[in-house]
Amino acid sequence: MTDLAAFRNRNCVVTGGLGFIGSNLVQRLVRAGANVVVVDALVPTHGGNSKNLAGVERDVQIVVASIADSAAVAPHVVRADHIFNLAGQVSHLDSMEDPLRDLEYNTTSQLAFLELVRRTNPDAAVVYSSTRQLYGKPRYLPVDEAHAVEPVDINGICKYATEQFHLLDARVHGMRACALRITNVYGPRQRIKDDKQGFLGIFVRRALKSEPITVYGDGGQLRDCLHVDDVVSALALAATSPDVAGHVVNLGHPDPMSVREAAETIVRIAGSGRVELVPWPRDHEIIDIGDYYGDYSLAERLLGWKPAITFADGMSDTVEYYREHLPWYL
Amino acid sequence: MTDLAAFRNRNCVVTGGLGFIGSNLVQRLVRAGANVVVVDALVPTHGGNSKNLAGVERDVQIVVASIADSAAVAPHVVRADHIFNLAGQVSHLDSMEDPLRDLEYNTTSQLAFLELVRRTNPDAAVVYSSTRQLYGKPRYLPVDEAHAVEPVDINGICKYATEQFHLLDARVHGMRACALRITNVYGPRQRIKDDKQGFLGIFVRRALKSEPITVYGDGGQLRDCLHVDDVVSALALAATSPDVAGHVVNLGHPDPMSVREAAETIVRIAGSGRVELVPWPRDHEIIDIGDYYGDYSLAERLLGWKPAITFADGMSDTVEYYREHLPWYL
Repeated sequence: MTDLAAFRNRNCVVTGGLGFIGSNLVQRLVRAGANVVVVDALVPTHGGNSKNLAGVERDVQIVVASIADSAAVAPHVVRADHIFNLAGQVSHLDSMEDPLRDLEYNTTSQLAFLELVRRTNPDAAVVYSSTRQLYGKPRYLPVDEAHAVEPVDINGICKYATEQFHLLDARVHGMRACALRITNVYGPRQRIKDDKQGFLGIFVRRALKSEPITVYGDGGQLRDCLHVDDVVSALALAATSPDVAGHVVNLGHPDPMSVREAAETIVRIAGSGRVELVPWPRDHEIIDIGDYYGDYSLAERLLGWKPAITFADGMSDTVEYYREHLPWYL
Repeated sequence: MTDLAAFRNRNCVVTGGLGFIGSNLVQRLVRAGANVVVVDALVPTHGGNSKNLAGVERDVQIVVASIADSAAVAPHVVRADHIFNLAGQVSHLDSMEDPLRDLEYNTTSQLAFLELVRRTNPDAAVVYSSTRQLYGKPRYLPVDEAHAVEPVDINGICKYATEQFHLLDARVHGMRACALRITNVYGPRQRIKDDKQGFLGIFVRRALKSEPITVYGDGGQLRDCLHVDDVVSALALAATSPDVAGHVVNLGHPDPMSVREAAETIVRIAGSGRVELVPWPRDHEIIDIGDYYGDYSLAERLLGWKPAITFADGMSDTVEYYREHLPWYL
């Protein structure tokens, strides 16, 4: 894992810091000696979970507020050296059911937050967690950052707008803002009680509960899956690299695998559950994108980053975590 | 000009119908015998002008309301056959000064409006007026629809999101929604009293007032300029063509010219004014995109559209209109 010593005594704000990726980042930042403020609205359908900061909760200041709540957020933003902007709604299906809500969380609140940063602390480094989802159905593989953007759902459209707001702040206002387009992530502290944060968490839950893992179609579609520790390393590097401002950067993994293979690996590691192939439900099928894996050579060049964790190792760590802490996540 | 006979006795809603393009469309629809409802919020900094419907005001129902005002808009949306969705903030510079306002007008209100259409009248044909601005600085010329999207300002980001909401409604919900990416437009009924609606209107105003026409740099950057009547024809064709749903379609002109040449042509036609080259102001320079002209072959294929009006002819018509009606626009 990337050493986070550079953050010792640095002021860090992590929006969405009680969520999946955010809390893993906070755990690492705190252990590296950073001063960490978490801003998280704890929206029930999102990924925030106060158990996620178990072990470091006394070393972190937690502000339960929307990022659009300037009064609550400004005192922390104004003295931040690094802002990890991970707040948002993740669920693609929820975004299709309530588009205006997704726009509010992922775009309107974000623009208000960015305007606050620009007015009060334009020198802070800002890293935004974007998503590979906004490429839509890949036209070629691996997908690099020059690939056309063609969001297949409301969530992708709303996240793309916010990603671009970050880049614009860098280009036009000289801010140190960048965005990472993150692929499927798994690991400790993910919301796994329902299907709002992707299929890998669900698979782990079902395996641990000795339930069938439902795979749509033949499960042949490829994905490059990242352990959250690799994502945290990329976030940390993006917040300190001198050349990344104004860029959008893919994260990816060199060993894409089929969804079915991922499910089978999880069953093997957990020693329980089983894989069950079922026909595609229509609401999933219309927003599915087929095979996806990303070209992350720009991340290697600009950040000196590449993933260090194999799926088997990462999933062993994940299964172990949830075996110990499953009640926190059900 | 394309015949609009297909709209006889059809129910048409035109959002932004008191604005530049909208009012020209309404004039033609009314003369073709359509039942037209205009929805326009008359936001002072936008392009709405009640004089724009002079001659047809008794034949049009005008609803002065935001498109997000469901109570005001729903009774008309529910029985519309064709919805021309032209409402929005156009000014790129205003969007940079007040990003949240641009998001509200161009994205949030639009999504609320689209949700209303989807819930109450998903069979209506919906045509959205998007902009070539969202391509950013062209990577190649002419720019076709496969060109990367790289908005250079808040307005481009917000309009892109809304364009994509339209396409998503077509793809996912089967709606007959499409978007036209419109290039620089000129003609009667444009807001020309300030710089909020592009350079061509300003040039006309200055020429008619015998003032210098200020051209930035050497004025060498190319633009393909469309007379508004050609745009109206494209909108009408898009609202009736069977194959355009789910598509974004460029409009363009086969004879791009330099900004300086456009200015000189206007001076010649008006018989007054003069061209003055000045250094780029920074706020314009940072969002300028260099040369632009579009590939509109998809519009030819899907809509059977191509522009019919030369710049000289179109500008003669324009100068004549403003010579007669200049006080309405100052």
